[in-house]
Amino acid sequence: MSLDAVLARIDTDLPQATERLLDLLRIPSISTDPAYKADCDKAADWLVRDLQSLGVEASKRPTPGHPMVVGHSGGEGRHMIFYGHYDVQPVDPLDLWDSGPFEPAIEETAKGTVIRGRGSSDDKGQLMTFVEACRAWKAVHGALPGNISFFFEGEEESGSPSLVPFMKENADELRADVALICDTGLFDSRVPAIVTSLRGLLGEELTIEGPDKDLHSGFFGGVAMNPARVLSRIIASLHDADGNVTVPGFYDGVAEISDEQRAQWQALEFDHDAFLGEVGLSELAGEQGRTALELMWSRPTCEVNGMISGYTGDGFKTVLPSKASAKISFRLVPGQDPFKIRESFRAMVHELLPVDCTVVFDNHGASPGIAMSTDNEAFDLARAALSDEWSDPAAYVGCGGSIPIAGHFKSILDTDAMLIGFGKDDDQIHSPNEKYDLESFHKGMRSWARILDRLAG
Amino acid sequence: MSLDAVLARIDTDLPQATERLLDLLRIPSISTDPAYKADCDKAADWLVRDLQSLGVEASKRPTPGHPMVVGHSGGEGRHMIFYGHYDVQPVDPLDLWDSGPFEPAIEETAKGTVIRGRGSSDDKGQLMTFVEACRAWKAVHGALPGNISFFFEGEEESGSPSLVPFMKENADELRADVALICDTGLFDSRVPAIVTSLRGLLGEELTIEGPDKDLHSGFFGGVAMNPARVLSRIIASLHDADGNVTVPGFYDGVAEISDEQRAQWQALEFDHDAFLGEVGLSELAGEQGRTALELMWSRPTCEVNGMISGYTGDGFKTVLPSKASAKISFRLVPGQDPFKIRESFRAMVHELLPVDCTVVFDNHGASPGIAMSTDNEAFDLARAALSDEWSDPAAYVGCGGSIPIAGHFKSILDTDAMLIGFGKDDDQIHSPNEKYDLESFHKGMRSWARILDRLAG
Repeated sequence: MSLDAVLARIDTDLPQATERLLDLLRIPSISTDPAYKADCDKAADWLVRDLQSLGVEASKRPTPGHPMVVGHSGGEGRHMIFYGHYDVQPVDPLDLWDSGPFEPAIEETAKGTVIRGRGSSDDKGQLMTFVEACRAWKAVHGALPGNISFFFEGEEESGSPSLVPFMKENADELRADVALICDTGLFDSRVPAIVTSLRGLLGEELTIEGPDKDLHSGFFGGVAMNPARVLSRIIASLHDADGNVTVPGFYDGVAEISDEQRAQWQALEFDHDAFLGEVGLSELAGEQGRTALELMWSRPTCEVNGMISGYTGDGFKTVLPSKASAKISFRLVPGQDPFKIRESFRAMVHELLPVDCTVVFDNHGASPGIAMSTDNEAFDLARAALSDEWSDPAAYVGCGGSIPIAGHFKSILDTDAMLIGFGKDDDQIHSPNEKYDLESFHKGMRSWARILDRLAG
Repeated sequence: MSLDAVLARIDTDLPQATERLLDLLRIPSISTDPAYKADCDKAADWLVRDLQSLGVEASKRPTPGHPMVVGHSGGEGRHMIFYGHYDVQPVDPLDLWDSGPFEPAIEETAKGTVIRGRGSSDDKGQLMTFVEACRAWKAVHGALPGNISFFFEGEEESGSPSLVPFMKENADELRADVALICDTGLFDSRVPAIVTSLRGLLGEELTIEGPDKDLHSGFFGGVAMNPARVLSRIIASLHDADGNVTVPGFYDGVAEISDEQRAQWQALEFDHDAFLGEVGLSELAGEQGRTALELMWSRPTCEVNGMISGYTGDGFKTVLPSKASAKISFRLVPGQDPFKIRESFRAMVHELLPVDCTVVFDNHGASPGIAMSTDNEAFDLARAALSDEWSDPAAYVGCGGSIPIAGHFKSILDTDAMLIGFGKDDDQIHSPNEKYDLESFHKGMRSWARILDRLAG
């Protein structure tokens, strides 16, 4: 009965919960860009105040970067720590947004009602599903269930430089029986998912420098080394014709998935044509002979995230650029050593450098892929709770993205982490016109209420 | 005696001439960027007024783009038409300028006095050497020598879209006995040069489009086609390991230089180590087994002038970009057909496109390489006049840059063109901190006075 009252409260409070989320979405907390430092701080303050309104002992905790928000409900029973992040991705190209990225709004679309705006899905909307479930619980019962801690980060989209030091310094405070992380998606609109493996991320930026100034291509073209050509050759060398990454030792330690795993993923009947069609594509572009789920969940990758050189404005400028740079990310699976791969990648680049060119590397983070242990009974309890809320039973799945926090909970705090989220493939996170389905928000809150009901007992 | 008086007048008027040039340099007439349209117009007006002050019948002549300035002195004798351009290159990267590009100033440097600012060398400073020589002549003689026409363009740095139509429409007005073009350099600080061959320019911009929006590289990396990788592979394919351009048919019609030509260029004792050292390089990067002068003056090239894709701001963004684009220029030598090469380049790009990618091309001009005939006696007269002014005899040389106007004078007006200029290799034209040596400006004016003296007779 008590769970039903909480679910009913969530249903009636949905308009107010939505308004609160819009309020949070209006804060442009872009962590990677120093221009938005004050906004990150503002988002943290907003969350501290909101947790305090739930009776949670919450505070903003300084780091060398953006602050953490930590809160504790106190209480008895299983100690659960909930993690989400309040920072968001940059918004460019801004001209591809149909409305202001930080002017969030509820929109009716052909596919249903959505909450539009940067961070609506990644991760403010997801974070608030849990906070709102707690609010409803508190409204009905006067207190939160069990013993809940809150842990919100503001640097997830910029490599989390302060996360590990903070977790190490505050290990006793953050250790719990189970960690709950809401930064992933549904398998599809009917099937909720608990992620049991995640890819890691190695972020590298390289700048090739040649002539000590931009030159006139009429005089120096065909005589002087062109860094844009050198960079292109390096990028083109990172894959072979079959889509395999050519960095030496890249696949060391990468295991093939088990037949059982393969069968389980096949049973999900993932529609890869629809998945690709959604973004205007028709064919899988990665390693040959693998399914989309295998590629996304179990195979490592190398991608160019950005590159620039020379004149890129309107019109034409016959400059021979003095430098060229690219941002390159590697998605890693369990078994790969991010630091060895960084070393091997950099050695490969040096190997490809012609005379008169030098390279400067910037480090944008290195985290390994991780696989969860599902032995903790919380996994089966949460799976059952999710299955109650959604039309189809919940699935254990992999995730192509990188959420290093899950690995840190295990390695630093010896705390098992469950990744449960309600995002959809078409949420356009990291892209213009990001949205979060109102249904994801609503059923997400209800899902957490059900999970808390099972776990807090 | 009369020439000596003109030269003396140039010497005493140098400070005033310099002030007039600084005034013109303050106008940011960047032709390629629509934001500076009014400034291009302003520069044209400035020149019309200045020519009128010399008693020249001058006017601004509209085109679909930036206006032309045309003027006629009238008078008897050899009809000479002088060409220069009043538009300038863009200034980015702006942060590499030590002072404002359009706040020109006289600076003392270790290598002598320079006029600093965008356009000081390319081409406002050079253009004004001729105008100032005329001004001195007029001050001494009360009229300009011979029969001089002036023809100033405002679209030279943006592909000259209006030039050919304008020349065709006004052919009778612009036809002359000889054209004088001041947009090239000295061979070195002692040896003045008359350019007898120029490379042409084919400008191409290509945009590779893949997914219909930017994607999250965690989910789509290794699954979806990445246009930045496709573009890199295309650019890397444009040259073989020996630096030869691989576009099919690219070298069709390219002739080896004659032994006589090679000997003449060898005699110039070009110091390619110093030339490369000047820009921080040590080795020739183009086709193997050729000298720097051969590469610059007689060989065609393909260079990347700019490229961009994905996130290029501060920090890191794990986006899989939906498109990638590059600006690519080909420098062409006599015998190559720019239109055939454009067609072959585009076909090659289509050939390299994977499934799910499309390409859009933009055309940024196509002009062939040209070789002058030195049979016109004006060439030898000018060479002798230059040899009088400078410490060493003038040389007939090639030029790696593209000054299509020289070819247009011949093909449209049947008028031979002489390219005489006073720029230096270290002028940093098209780059930050462009400068023009005060000596180039001063001796440039004196050179034109001597050339006019010989040609007007």
